[in-house]
Amino acid sequence: MKIDVKDFRVREGDKVDLKKWPTKVDPVYKSKEQYQKVLEEHVAELSAQQQLLYASNSHAILLIFQAMDAAGKDGAIKHVMSGVNPQGCQVFSFKHPSATELEHDFLWRTTRDLPERGRIGIFNRSYYEEVLIVRVHPEILRSEGLPNGSHDEETLWHDRYRSIVDLERHLHVNGTRIVKFFLHLSKEEQRKRFLARIDEPEKNWKFSSGDIEERKFWPDYMKAYGQCLEATSTKDSPWYVVPADDKENSRLIVSKIILDTLEGLKMSFPKTMDARRKELLDIRKKLVESD
Amino acid sequence: MKIDVKDFRVREGDKVDLKKWPTKVDPVYKSKEQYQKVLEEHVAELSAQQQLLYASNSHAILLIFQAMDAAGKDGAIKHVMSGVNPQGCQVFSFKHPSATELEHDFLWRTTRDLPERGRIGIFNRSYYEEVLIVRVHPEILRSEGLPNGSHDEETLWHDRYRSIVDLERHLHVNGTRIVKFFLHLSKEEQRKRFLARIDEPEKNWKFSSGDIEERKFWPDYMKAYGQCLEATSTKDSPWYVVPADDKENSRLIVSKIILDTLEGLKMSFPKTMDARRKELLDIRKKLVESD
Repeated sequence: MKIDVKDFRVREGDKVDLKKWPTKVDPVYKSKEQYQKVLEEHVAELSAQQQLLYASNSHAILLIFQAMDAAGKDGAIKHVMSGVNPQGCQVFSFKHPSATELEHDFLWRTTRDLPERGRIGIFNRSYYEEVLIVRVHPEILRSEGLPNGSHDEETLWHDRYRSIVDLERHLHVNGTRIVKFFLHLSKEEQRKRFLARIDEPEKNWKFSSGDIEERKFWPDYMKAYGQCLEATSTKDSPWYVVPADDKENSRLIVSKIILDTLEGLKMSFPKTMDARRKELLDIRKKLVESD
Repeated sequence: MKIDVKDFRVREGDKVDLKKWPTKVDPVYKSKEQYQKVLEEHVAELSAQQQLLYASNSHAILLIFQAMDAAGKDGAIKHVMSGVNPQGCQVFSFKHPSATELEHDFLWRTTRDLPERGRIGIFNRSYYEEVLIVRVHPEILRSEGLPNGSHDEETLWHDRYRSIVDLERHLHVNGTRIVKFFLHLSKEEQRKRFLARIDEPEKNWKFSSGDIEERKFWPDYMKAYGQCLEATSTKDSPWYVVPADDKENSRLIVSKIILDTLEGLKMSFPKTMDARRKELLDIRKKLVESD
């Protein structure tokens, strides 16, 4: 079963109505065993590509995960990235901003954690929260100390989209490849997963009653996500809408997208120059002759 | 003598040939005493405005100083900002980037030090070095680990200007007012100041022989500055070309520009709401009646 990542990609300029994007598709695996096998292949290739990324030190990779609660962001990050050398891969989760962070513009706190060249940086939630949860709950804006006159909301979201697109363009030009995942879950599947978190004691820690509250805002979230994806998916820094009702399937799709992105860089190990090669051979000779 | 700051402002879209901008103008003061008096007035007003900025907490101010060596950046910062509460004002000097900083895009290291709302941030040199000294000495680019294919130089500078303009637009929309100073010194006045640094033992520490080397590149620097000012001076985040052959005069001009910028925000102390006022009066009553 072949995964064509284009099926999940939001093309620049396309209108996005998330009702038309599936939360479930025919799985790309036939059995649990085949799922494991394909995932392991992807992870092994990812690990090799990450070594190349590290050695060639010319690009950084930024992977952004956004989704409704229980869509499987943490699980996807864990299962897809666990085989990769942690020295070259860092995950940052963004929760409530601190008081100091709120004193800065909305892109500041995530910018500090952008990946260095040669590394993969993963944002579990990101600056996109500023046009998602904040859009659904605009009262949050009050804590952000915005200048007077910027509270015309339509203009504000439009400005934020533009700031994000500009930032991502700048990062792309300077060598960071950005891929953004929206794990697309159905409201019904979320209900099932919340029930499991209540019914299975070992999952209780994952559950908070506030999660239920947010379900009331489901249509608002879908609208905010749709407009966000529409405004910020670009040719260079695309959004992918990954059907997330089947966790295993979504992990295979996510890992394939990351792999395609890395392979698209067509990296190779840096060639050793003749002079350096000669130097290395001289050192080798001395090493061999020494005791 | 009135200072009209518009005389020194680079208007958005204007061509900039620095040969046509004066390094010396009729001084706005008549005597050393009058200079002191006017400067003290400016500093007092600045200090009052900064308190307002702090109290209203809706804007940040970013002042960027760029110039050839010995143009008086440090002196201007010292004399103009010394009367301002240091709690609301921070100066950052950017020298050679660290290894970690070089692993990031060229805007990363300065972004970390952007001023919070309510504060004045001063950049003594800045991200503009990346289109000034780096443009004059493009061999520096080699240490910046840029992705292959971005080494077409014209495109690279154009991309950097765009990244800078985009960043400053984003910051402006989110409440940061940016003012950029180019202290415009003549090559002859620089020679005199270098000679003084050699001849006067208490100034020796300021002198390094590398400074002399850079004089060879004077026309290249003037070209790089001209193109930079032309590409990045905007209505919202303007450049000012301040004649710098007369230090005292340049300080009066710089302080007036900062003052006009702050006054342009038309800030006032936050109004106390009736309910809050009542609460304060209740507390006052209890305080008075207590022992």
